Amino acid sequence: MKSVKSISVLGSTGSIGTQTLQIAEEFPEQFKVVGLTAGRNLDLLVRQIQTHNPEIVALADASLLPELKSRLNDNSPNESQTKLPQLTGGIEGLNTVAGWDKTDLVVTGIVGCAGLLPTLSAIRAGKDLALANKETLIAAGPVVLPELKKSGSRLLPADSEHSAIFQCLQGTPWADNARLSTGIPTPGLRRIQLTASGGAFRDWSTKDLEQATVKDATSHPNWSMGKKITVDSATLMNKGLEVIEAHYLFGLEYEHIEIVIHPQSIIHSMIELADSSVLAQLGWPDMKLPILYCMSWPRRLHTPWERLDLTKIEKLTFKSPDTEKYPCMQLAYSAGRIGGTMPAVLNAANEEAVDQFLKEKIQFIEIPKMIERACEIHKRDLNIKPNLDEILEVDFWAREIIREVVKKNS
Amino acid sequence: MKSVKSISVLGSTGSIGTQTLQIAEEFPEQFKVVGLTAGRNLDLLVRQIQTHNPEIVALADASLLPELKSRLNDNSPNESQTKLPQLTGGIEGLNTVAGWDKTDLVVTGIVGCAGLLPTLSAIRAGKDLALANKETLIAAGPVVLPELKKSGSRLLPADSEHSAIFQCLQGTPWADNARLSTGIPTPGLRRIQLTASGGAFRDWSTKDLEQATVKDATSHPNWSMGKKITVDSATLMNKGLEVIEAHYLFGLEYEHIEIVIHPQSIIHSMIELADSSVLAQLGWPDMKLPILYCMSWPRRLHTPWERLDLTKIEKLTFKSPDTEKYPCMQLAYSAGRIGGTMPAVLNAANEEAVDQFLKEKIQFIEIPKMIERACEIHKRDLNIKPNLDEILEVDFWAREIIREVVKKNS
Repeated sequence: MKSVKSISVLGSTGSIGTQTLQIAEEFPEQFKVVGLTAGRNLDLLVRQIQTHNPEIVALADASLLPELKSRLNDNSPNESQTKLPQLTGGIEGLNTVAGWDKTDLVVTGIVGCAGLLPTLSAIRAGKDLALANKETLIAAGPVVLPELKKSGSRLLPADSEHSAIFQCLQGTPWADNARLSTGIPTPGLRRIQLTASGGAFRDWSTKDLEQATVKDATSHPNWSMGKKITVDSATLMNKGLEVIEAHYLFGLEYEHIEIVIHPQSIIHSMIELADSSVLAQLGWPDMKLPILYCMSWPRRLHTPWERLDLTKIEKLTFKSPDTEKYPCMQLAYSAGRIGGTMPAVLNAANEEAVDQFLKEKIQFIEIPKMIERACEIHKRDLNIKPNLDEILEVDFWAREIIREVVKKNS
Repeated sequence: MKSVKSISVLGSTGSIGTQTLQIAEEFPEQFKVVGLTAGRNLDLLVRQIQTHNPEIVALADASLLPELKSRLNDNSPNESQTKLPQLTGGIEGLNTVAGWDKTDLVVTGIVGCAGLLPTLSAIRAGKDLALANKETLIAAGPVVLPELKKSGSRLLPADSEHSAIFQCLQGTPWADNARLSTGIPTPGLRRIQLTASGGAFRDWSTKDLEQATVKDATSHPNWSMGKKITVDSATLMNKGLEVIEAHYLFGLEYEHIEIVIHPQSIIHSMIELADSSVLAQLGWPDMKLPILYCMSWPRRLHTPWERLDLTKIEKLTFKSPDTEKYPCMQLAYSAGRIGGTMPAVLNAANEEAVDQFLKEKIQFIEIPKMIERACEIHKRDLNIKPNLDEILEVDFWAREIIREVVKKNS
């Protein structure tokens, strides 16, 4: 093993991206940042480039490239010392960073389906991946899994729940196969339980949800995250998406994936083994730990981070999720069970519906109704073995149909 | 790997022994019982012999051998079909069963220091061990560890707390070394937390303990166990002994071994890794699971046992232990830190003091005082690198001194 691991960060100015870069700063002897991609936040990107001095940087919006270039030139204190990175843009640029030759590990922190193509580029280039972009697997599981097998890329889950399961699985007889996903025998593993905080509305009644505002829905009680995923937590769609993600990551049938409400977010998830033993991973609700584990795996790095003290928390509580209050969970389970293109439709419809909610075009409780409608219509066009183009097509279609419905209703 | 594992059970009529035999009955295709040893419970031993048809049986009290023989002959329904086992007795007999050629795994369920010599015989014969007899390591760690290294025997912990740690450790970078014990580097493991139910008196005040009767002290709230260990739970000496056991099993210094009170006994123990991640093993409070894991390790067998349901338990609580109410914990930590013969004195003094309490010769709150006295006196004779004879000698001495003190006070 090389002593320094080279990291590329897709979505470096987002929540996962900034935390990944903080870790790289905290462990300069372990990690070197070689590639960055970002959307529109040039201020932050320029600071990141100056701090980490990467070899290549891509902007999703290529039209901003001239501005980035001029800012970097203006800000460069001493041009003879600091070599400017190679700059590139658009989807081609993102793909270039994802497959960059010097990269050992690609951290994919791009929100939503936009992360799919660069993730596939990283896989095709044989890179190991820290997957924080769950939409990639959810929408494109049927395409991603065979590519993984072909290239030998390893998919390390950065989602805290899947990281918990991945950590617990390290010692099971099944752990060697953990990245091979669906279809493999699972001699040691019987069931997984994803814990859910319950999100912003866990103490609200079903009735009160009718009045929920954007501000209400974007205040998460435990986790500091991006806006879209915070709304997904409030609808519990985030947990539903994680169920599908777990299905693809760990090769379990849906009846063996359960959700349990655990408001303190201390137990990040659990596995139940064949003999009834349960293993759990615990920690403070902080994404840095699952991100670091992807970066250091299979090693553990010493951190000075605050250690978990259960006597401070005093109690951990658990209850079954309320399926009436949170219809998104069941929508996800049933889309997952149908398979094929249906999870892609679910995911795209959700992204669009959440976007419409954030723009205050629809009510909070309309989010599941919109998604259900899109999934219902898609049943007649279901494709069980889609290729990448077909997935992108249904993704596009589902967004369109949500926008149409919203327009018609307004 | 052979398809059937041959098991010998030392202390077959005790709590651990009977549960081990229940497991063997439940998984007849996995386990074959080839050896049994017992103390005085002939009724149960005869039934066990008839059920499991072992090759060899030893009675600790050799004088009971003729009676056992005649009972087996009387009860044998058809002598031509059932071959009677070879019978043997005394400490020599126990050693013979422990080292029996056909045995793959020796389960040591003998309570107290009496299990030490047969355990050493099993180790010297190169047998894998399921260790439920914690006194072996506590009293004789300095002798047992080098013998393990020499013979290549593997020491699998059957204590629920240590099994939890062992299960969690399977996936750490350190797991391969887990049986090598003290002195090894521990790159992945930073700390362990042993959970304690708090025992029979967890809701009693320190003042009320003065009135505690034998009946009070032998009613454990969660675990069904033998009398001696149930009293050890009530004094929290059991947890103190487990701290020393963990020190020898996992090679951790005492400052990295903590106790946390967890009244529900659902989290059986936890490990904290270098990066601050915590792994825990959970299950109902039932010794069958840790015993089974010793028997099936490194595999997991499918069981139909009741699965853990945290939504039924609703909450898990945690608090720091009360060192004033439970002085035995600190006595164990300090004996462990002193090392050498001191843990043997602590253990023997505790066994004798608990025995005197069970005989109603001393009060419950006198148990720690007696042990402290014995340890205090032993300081002048401390032997840092004892051999087996020297350990047996201080064990004998510590029991004597407790008996003398009790006599003088009565």
